[in-house]
Formats: sequence, structure tokens, C-alpha cells
Amino acid sequence: MSRNEIRFRLATRADLPSIVRMLADDELGSQREQYKDPIPESYYAGFEQIKDDPNHELIVAELNGEVIGTLHLMILPSISFQGGLRAQIESVRVDKRYQSQGIGSKMMQWTIERARERGAHIVQLTTHRSREDAHRFYERLGFKATHLGMKMSLK
Amino acid sequence: MSRNEIRFRLATRADLPSIVRMLADDELGSQREQYKDPIPESYYAGFEQIKDDPNHELIVAELNGEVIGTLHLMILPSISFQGGLRAQIESVRVDKRYQSQGIGSKMMQWTIERARERGAHIVQLTTHRSREDAHRFYERLGFKATHLGMKMSLK
Repeated sequence: MSRNEIRFRLATRADLPSIVRMLADDELGSQREQYKDPIPESYYAGFEQIKDDPNHELIVAELNGEVIGTLHLMILPSISFQGGLRAQIESVRVDKRYQSQGIGSKMMQWTIERARERGAHIVQLTTHRSREDAHRFYERLGFKATHLGMKMSLK
Repeated sequence: MSRNEIRFRLATRADLPSIVRMLADDELGSQREQYKDPIPESYYAGFEQIKDDPNHELIVAELNGEVIGTLHLMILPSISFQGGLRAQIESVRVDKRYQSQGIGSKMMQWTIERARERGAHIVQLTTHRSREDAHRFYERLGFKATHLGMKMSLK
């Protein structure tokens, strides 16, 4: 692999501190994540569930050996759309030091292609209403904001 | 079980025609589903994937032996929220002949309790921007429209 070439691959346990650092490193994430050394064991427990489920893929973007982006791809069986598979993307982050360089776009395009290969007829995500930059970013990729994303905390 | 008591349970293969009828029976659903006799085989294929995956539950509401409501509950592992489980609800329908009688609320409340028992810290769903009655319905249940739901067709 030549220098300065971005590579996408499945995450390993060893990537988790880098992933949690990126998840925690924004206004919303800082309220709900705990990035410390070591990271809480619950992150590893979540990772094991993802790793053991072929319908979940935790993906990282790597540049010169460093993890600089992440997202979580889910393949969801469904009855609706004539029993068609949906793809869903959660927890998208690019390291702040590498933002606005097209890395997020490449990571999303790579993932959309992967979703297509897995047979998904649609790819969906939700993004907080306050993340206006993210809305434009996803619209440029071809997403349409057709839905409201509604959430309820159970804690 | 006494008459006129609603019961909630996991769907079986035999429920699929009733489920597809409800999915197809509105403006958006009629554009993407195929309710005919027999229903297309792809619905059964989707059902088998759901049935084989412990993180997916296709649920029906039954009244006097008749299926009058359905939804799909998903339990999603995650790294974000400190490795916490998310619950997601898709494909919510109540038979038109039984709407506005509180059946949808009961079905959602039953499902939210089930998500809590499964250990989910949050329950999420998306609803089309045009379904204003649905927005009010979910807000009354405690959901907040904090997110945009963005979708892209891969067909």
C-alpha cells in the first residue's frame, strides 16, 4: 500500500480506543461516551456482539497505519419492501484532524458499495437535526431527508 | 383468553399474508408491496431471516384470533453509548378497520417494554415526513423528533 492511501477494513479489538476517541470527540458524543485509558469494558462487550453477528460490520478508515475514520454498517432483514434487505449506517466519524479532505465521502461511498454487494435495496441513517453540515454531506452523497428520526431514552 | 382482549406474540409464517395486507394498505405501502394470493415468495424469505436471528422479532397483535397489527422490533448492538444496545422499530401497522382505538399505542407500549427487558437503552424509529398523524402518535408515546431520517435507494 502506498503512502497516503486510505484503506477501509473491518475493525479489530485493538482499534476500539481510536474508535471511542472519535465517537467522544464532538459536542453530542462527549455527553455520552467515556474516552479514558483504558476505555470501559462495555465497549469491548459491544464489539464482541458486533463481531459475532454477520449482519453487523464495524468499519475503520486507515491512513498510514492510523485509524482516522469509523462507521457501523448493519444489514437488516425486513418484511417490508417485499422482504428486501435494508442497510443502515450508524456512528459515522472522521478524526477532526482529517476532516474536510473527502475522507468521509470515500468511506461512505465504499460502505454504500458494500451494502449494495450484500443485496440491500436501500441504505438509511439518521442524523441529529442540529448537524447541518452532516445533512449537506449526506445530501451530496445522494441521501434524501424523507423521514423524521424519533428516539426515546429508556434509562 | 377472553373475547376482545388484544394479545401480542411473535409472528408465524401463517401470519404473513395478513402482515403484507396491512403493509400494502396505505399510500406509501401500496407503491412498494405486492399483496396478492399467494404473496410473493420473497416475503417468506425475509421472514425466515428474521425468525433465524434472535435480534429480530416480527410481532403481531391478535384480536379474537385475527391479526390486526404488526411491527418489527430489532435489537442492535453498538459501540456508541458505551457499547449500549439500541432497539429499533420498523414497519408499524394497524389494520385500518381497527385504527383510532388505542391498539397501536398498546402494541408500541408492549414493544417498548420488551425492548427494555432486552436491555436496550434507547428505542428509535423513523417515520415519513408526510405522516403527521404518526408524528403526533409517537410524540404522545414519549418519542422526540430529534433526528432527520435520510434514505437512499440502491435500485
